[in-house]
Formats: sequence, structure tokens, C-alpha cells
Amino acid sequence: MTRTIDINSDLGEAYGPWKMGDDAAMMGVVSSANVACGGHASDPETMYRTLRLCREAGVTAGAHPGYADREGFGRRIIPMTGEEITRLVAAQIGALQGVASLADCPVTFVKPHGALNNLASADRAVADAIAVAVKASGLAMLAISGTELEAASRAAGIPTISEIFADRGYQDNGLLVPRGQPGAMIHDASAAAERILHLLDTGRMQTVSGAEIPQAAESICVHSDEPSAVALATELRARLEAEGVTIAPFA
Amino acid sequence: MTRTIDINSDLGEAYGPWKMGDDAAMMGVVSSANVACGGHASDPETMYRTLRLCREAGVTAGAHPGYADREGFGRRIIPMTGEEITRLVAAQIGALQGVASLADCPVTFVKPHGALNNLASADRAVADAIAVAVKASGLAMLAISGTELEAASRAAGIPTISEIFADRGYQDNGLLVPRGQPGAMIHDASAAAERILHLLDTGRMQTVSGAEIPQAAESICVHSDEPSAVALATELRARLEAEGVTIAPFA
Amino acid sequence: MTRTIDINSDLGEAYGPWKMGDDAAMMGVVSSANVACGGHASDPETMYRTLRLCREAGVTAGAHPGYADREGFGRRIIPMTGEEITRLVAAQIGALQGVASLADCPVTFVKPHGALNNLASADRAVADAIAVAVKASGLAMLAISGTELEAASRAAGIPTISEIFADRGYQDNGLLVPRGQPGAMIHDASAAAERILHLLDTGRMQTVSGAEIPQAAESICVHSDEPSAVALATELRARLEAEGVTIAPFA
Amino acid sequence: MTRTIDINSDLGEAYGPWKMGDDAAMMGVVSSANVACGGHASDPETMYRTLRLCREAGVTAGAHPGYADREGFGRRIIPMTGEEITRLVAAQIGALQGVASLADCPVTFVKPHGALNNLASADRAVADAIAVAVKASGLAMLAISGTELEAASRAAGIPTISEIFADRGYQDNGLLVPRGQPGAMIHDASAAAERILHLLDTGRMQTVSGAEIPQAAESICVHSDEPSAVALATELRARLEAEGVTIAPFA
Repeated sequence: MTRTIDINSDLGEAYGPWKMGDDAAMMGVVSSANVACGGHASDPETMYRTLRLCREAGVTAGAHPGYADREGFGRRIIPMTGEEITRLVAAQIGALQGVASLADCPVTFVKPHGALNNLASADRAVADAIAVAVKASGLAMLAISGTELEAASRAAGIPTISEIFADRGYQDNGLLVPRGQPGAMIHDASAAAERILHLLDTGRMQTVSGAEIPQAAESICVHSDEPSAVALATELRARLEAEGVTIAPFA
Repeated sequence: MTRTIDINSDLGEAYGPWKMGDDAAMMGVVSSANVACGGHASDPETMYRTLRLCREAGVTAGAHPGYADREGFGRRIIPMTGEEITRLVAAQIGALQGVASLADCPVTFVKPHGALNNLASADRAVADAIAVAVKASGLAMLAISGTELEAASRAAGIPTISEIFADRGYQDNGLLVPRGQPGAMIHDASAAAERILHLLDTGRMQTVSGAEIPQAAESICVHSDEPSAVALATELRARLEAEGVTIAPFA
Repeated sequence: MTRTIDINSDLGEAYGPWKMGDDAAMMGVVSSANVACGGHASDPETMYRTLRLCREAGVTAGAHPGYADREGFGRRIIPMTGEEITRLVAAQIGALQGVASLADCPVTFVKPHGALNNLASADRAVADAIAVAVKASGLAMLAISGTELEAASRAAGIPTISEIFADRGYQDNGLLVPRGQPGAMIHDASAAAERILHLLDTGRMQTVSGAEIPQAAESICVHSDEPSAVALATELRARLEAEGVTIAPFA
Repeated sequence: MTRTIDINSDLGEAYGPWKMGDDAAMMGVVSSANVACGGHASDPETMYRTLRLCREAGVTAGAHPGYADREGFGRRIIPMTGEEITRLVAAQIGALQGVASLADCPVTFVKPHGALNNLASADRAVADAIAVAVKASGLAMLAISGTELEAASRAAGIPTISEIFADRGYQDNGLLVPRGQPGAMIHDASAAAERILHLLDTGRMQTVSGAEIPQAAESICVHSDEPSAVALATELRARLEAEGVTIAPFA
């Protein structure tokens, strides 16, 4: 039996002279990269450099649109109508695709960033607004498993990939344990790997209560912004591969 | 004998709450619109609104990339390498195309804006850098007749449209009379129309010296930023049509 | 008996090549100008030009800080902590004061803009955060009569000027009639002037219900963004002056 | 005999979520900090955090204005008139002073950044334009020894501090050896310290040719952007102090 799963991470979040995370290291860990598009981070040079890194590493590139708020890194909700969100997302997807036309690295999917993703996870109208832009682009959607965005995307007929978090605890209702609460974060790569392997074998996620819930998972989200996150992601991949899991982009 | 020519103008140069020119009026004058892409002006909302106006008016839309310098409105040369220019232009074309995917109004050509266009007119390396991005986009190029950009575009195998200015005087060497010199500006719509009609009939442009020079012209550039410019453009179109000229986008 | 009141308006809200309203006309109407500081609008050139207009017209200049959101013109609430708001406001006041050091036109007061002013009117924590910055600047505060900002400003020992709106209807509770409801807007200059004269004579504001409420008013806010607003403000001033009211900046 | 000199460095060059250099470490090395003002880098939060670090470390704070070009980090010349430069610099000085009103850390001097400083070193008109803003601010100027900016500053009656570079080679004409040429960079802290000690003792700078030239030096500029630069600066200070030199801000 072949077990295959994708690993994705947010990359290309530099801006002008400023760096963010260790993209080169993460290119050896992930199979898919969520590439910032000039909204919450990035600029044409950074987009190009990141897409070239993707191409060299054989990593699939996706657009990672966020609120046009560099100072807040896309982590603040900027009040916008659904139509404004649709156009924001479309413009950012397009910008990355424009640069991709130079980089010989196609853009194949979209994953919203930060506050926009959080809002779209819970608010169907925002989710639908994003889905309109993604549908028009012809790309796939990478959405958090069990969210309104996942539902909106499937309802719109968009090829949809469900993701789970390697380093976050889950509640019995399928939602993440809020940060700051016990079990919110998983710092141990072994524990993270065991949970993923169990999920791959059974289709069931182990929750902080000790229960198990069914959960779709075609991609694992890992973080890239701190050295410890890179180390965890690296070890997670190694353990999965040691158990015979193939790490590969969703088709 | 059918005489046909395109009229183009820079539109969609609003930004957030700020307006620029009277786009709605100009949509009745032009057959092609150079639509700002978020560099020197515009934002996703403005792009969408402008592309919808184009669609409603039957006006062909082109991308109008410029230096990412709103404060200077793209009229200042920002020092950039050729590769940086290529990526800047590609990202801006892509952003407009992304919004166009929502607006049911395809983007068909590219015309650089302001200082970038001026530089590309005289500097072949900059012209080539722009041509790389336009070639990758698959769109046509709208270039000032007789410039390095026109030459670079044709050399790159890009479908290229040559434009002349309705309200600017020409020298015998084919270059514009610099602003501030006698004959630089043509304020009279009759005179402007006569010169264009002569050009359409003979392929020869009348210069300020009284001479005539051969000049390619598939599109006439008119200005949109002041009420007097709109009036001149409106009257020019009326006179050309009264003489049996068809105003239509280049194929 | 001498009756004196200030008239204030938001001015200097251009940005780069884009204009907003008719500042030159408004300089003949107002005695105080709320000058944008580079947050929701403006740039160093616009600040300088506006402060010079103030100086030439004998108009008192105040700082008009807003969210750093040009695209939204400061009309969207950007999520920020109180400390972040304090620093944002302090930086914007300072920027205007820096330019004022060149313009021979002192900055004497602060009035928050748009969504920041609306939030500070109702949220005491935000009001306090703004008051910290204004207190540190040593300037006065121009606050909407009856709001949390007015209360926070007085509590902080800041010289505080209370303003009312010339063209907005009031409810019996002292709050504005929400836009879109009957009586929200006053479009007739005579009616606006009568209400102000009554207020100056009695200290009582006439409300939409026909009642009267006591209301502090040292400054009248007029709008500047549309031709009709400029016309209303102009006529209002003329009528007040015809009745012997002196229009002058608060001391 | 007491030998005293200042050490300055560019600090506070973070932006939003992005970091630049190790400011905390540098605060133990320098006696003066050139604090970015929101032009080429920084924002109100970063300004505040940096000024508080200055205060805690007993480091004197100066304004470090640059072109309003974050993407280019102020290292590109943006075409501006002298008057535009004056207003740009005044607004940035003011912004930092505004935040300083909250941080209990006064701003005492100005040092231009990057391309603006390079241009002002060689172009007297630009130097004069900066001097106008600094004069109006009442602050001192920190200028590279021997430059047009130093001359313009002294001519304007501004208290002027002359700086030299610890890690750059000098030519016999007093100018820096251009980067990329032999002797341009000094990587050895001992050699850098010896040269500074000789300068303090004799008032003469040793050049790459082996000659010596007279040179005013009240402050030493050290770099902060790379770990190796921080290490060099740290060792330089230790060596100077071991030789009995007092590191202290210019009065």
C-alpha cells in the first residue's frame, strides 16, 4: 500500500531588503509552497526568486494572497466587502502568475493568508468571495480541512485540497485548540509524525481529548517562520519517509 | 477607400478615494484604453471599474505598467536593473489580467507609462527588458512610433502597434518637439485632425519645420488628464469620423 | 454682545498627483484647518502646500491624523492596540510639525480623522490612547461635542475644543442622526445658519424631534469634499457674519 | 590626556514584521544611533521600540531620514527637487520627534541615509536642501568628514559632527576607496582600531597608499547589518577602550 501526502508551507515572505524565514531550507522539506503575492509580503523580485527556488527544488507553487497590509503582515482584518475581497485576491493571483510567466514555474493553486484565511474559515460570505476569484483563475484551492472555505470551494466546483496542521492540536469538533490553551501546539516531531501516520492509515485524527475524529487530509501545513519550526518540519518529513510515506504535491 | 485608425488614452488612473480625469467621458472617444495596473496608479477596485467601463463601451483594454511610485505618478525614473524592470512589468500585467478574469474584458496589449515609457523610447536595454515581459505575456505592444521600444518589440516578435500623438508637434527627425518649445503642443482640434488625415492619406507626418516625414501610425494617443484635453480628443474624433475615418481598435 | 465661533474643515487631503476638494476655496470659509499628516492622505509636499495656504489665509492649522490606510482613506477600522494608536498619532503629528517648521505656520491642535475619530468618539480606551499622544505633543484637541474623545481629552488636562456639525441633524440624546435616516443631513444653508445662531444665543441645539438640548460648541465642522458642501459652508459663513457673528479660531 | 570619540550606527531599520540586524547587540557598542524615520525603513512601532532601547542603553538618538522607498531601502536615488528633499527630510525628522515625545528619549541630531547621504556628500544643492530642514529642526548634523554635506551644514550654522568609517579604506584625496577596489574594506578589528588610535593621537588618517592626511573625526561609523559587522564593531570598541579611549556621544 502506498501512502502519499503533500507538505505545504508559506514561503517567499521577504520584502525589499528584509528577509523572512529560511526559504532555501524549507524547499527541501515541502512539496508545495504558498508564495506571497505582494499583498501582506513580497514584491516582484521576491516572487521571481521564490518561484525559481520552487522550480529548482521541484516544489509546486501556489498563490498566497492576503490583505494588502504589509505593516500588519496580513494578520489584521481590513474591513472589505466581498466584492473587494474577490478583486484583491484576483489581482494578487494574477501578479504571481505574471511573474511565473518568466520563471518557468506554473502556479497551480491558491491558499489565502493569515487573517483572510482565518476569516474565510469561519465566514461563508468571505469564503465565497475568495472562491469567485479562484474559480475565475482556473486554479485549485488549498483550504483548511473542515472550514467554510473548503465548503465554499467544493460548492464552486473548484478542485480542493484539504489541509491539516502538523504542529497544532485538534478538538473533538474538528477545530484547532486555540493558541494559549493546553495542547494547542505540538513541539515534538515524533508525536507529530505518529499522529499523521495514524491519520494516513485510518483517516482519523487524534484529538487532545484522546478521542479520534474522521478528517480529510491531502496536505500537511508546516510553519517556516522560526528555526524551531524548520527543525520540526524537517524531522517530520524524515520520519514520514522512514515509514514509507511518499511526500508529493497533490496532483 | 476605407481609412481606419485606433485612438488610445491613459485611463483608470484613480487611486483609492482619489479620481483622475473623466474616464466615463473618454470611453466615448477612444477605441483602446491603457489601464493602470497598481504601479503608478490604481488598485484592484479601480482596475475592475475601469475594465467594466471598457467592456460597456466596447473599448479594447491594455495594461499600462509604470514604476511602482504612486507619489511620483510614475513620472520619475526609479533606478532599476533590466531584470527588475522585466519582473515589475510582468507582475503588473498579471495583476490586471487577474482582475480581468472577473470583468469579462480581456487584456490585449501593453503600453508602458510615463518615465518608464520615456526611458524605453530612448534606451534599448530598458526596451528589451519590457519586451521580455510582454513577450512572456503573449500580448501585443503599443509603442511610440520610431522609438527603441518599437524596435525592441518588433525584434522580439511581439505584435507591435505604432502610435503617434495627436496634440504634439514633430521634428524632422521624427522626435517630438520638447515641451516648452514653439510648436510643442497643438491646441486646435482642426489642425490636429488635418494633420492626422494627411497622415492617413499619405503616410507622411507634417513637422513643425513645414517638412513631411514618413511615419507609421496605427494608433493616435490622446490625453485625458485635463478638461481641455478631453475636449480636444472629442472634437478630433468627431472630425475624423466626419471625414469618413473609422475609429477602431487595432486588430 | 459679541458672538464668536470657529469653523473647521478637513483640508490637505491630496496625495501625490491626486487632488481632493477645493482647498483654496475653503481657506476663505474656515478659520481652522484639519491638515492630513500622511496617514489616510497627504505627503510632505501636500502638507507644505496646505500649511502655506493656511498661513496666507490666516487660518489656524491642526494635525488630522488617521489610520495609515490611503486606499481606504482612513475610513476603515484597522485593528490596532491602544499603544499602537498612540504611536501612530504621535508620528503623524510630528510629521506635520516637521513640515510646519519650514512653512512658518504653527500647528496648534489635533483632530483625529474618519474611522479613528468615530471609534474614539465611542470607545474610551481608543480615546485615551489618542489623548496620550496629544498630551505629549502639547497641542489642543478638537473633539466632537459629547463624545468619549472629548471626555478623555479633558480628563487628560488637554485644552479641548468641542465641535458640532453644521450639516448634520442631532437626536435628543446628543448623537447625530445616522446617515440615511430622515433629518440626517441639512442641505439648506439658511436652516443650518438659524440653528447655529440659536445655539450661539442659547447654548441649546435644536434636534430633529423639535426638542432642544444643551450643547457645548466652540467650533463648527463643515465639509469640503464636494462642490455642494463648499457652497453650503460658504453661505453658512456669510449668514453668520451678516448676523454679527465673528468667525475666528479658538484661542 | 583624555581621548574621546563617538561611535554611531544605523539602527531601527526593521519594518512591520521584518527585522534588520541585531539592534539589541549594537546598543552595547555605539554611543549614538541613527534611527530610521519611516522613509527607507521603520514605522511608528519600530521607532518607539528603538528609542526605548536607546534610552535604556544610554545611547544618543538621531534621525536617519532617507528616500521614501522601502522596497529599495533608500539605496536608490529618487529624482526630487531640492525643495522636495527639504520637506521629505523635515517630515521624517518630525515623525521621529513625535514618537520621541512618548519615549522619553530626545532626538539630538540628523544623519541622512543611503543614496540621499551619498548624493548630499557630492552635490552641494542637495546638501543645502537637507541643511535647510535640519536648521529648521534645531538639531545637529552628523556628516561624513570632507563632504559637501559637512560644508553645507557648517555654512548654515548647524552644529556639525564629522564622521569617518571604521571599516573603509581612504584615498589620499580624503574620499573612500570605492567598494570592489583593493583596500576598500577593512575586515580586521586590530587594523581598524590602530588606524583610529593614530587618528585620535595625530589628527591624521592613514590612507591605502601609505600616506597620511589630516581629517576631522568626532564620530566613527560602524555597520550593523551583518553578524560580521557587529563582531568587528564590538571588537573595535573593546580595543579603543583598552587603550584608554572614552566612547561617548558628541556633546
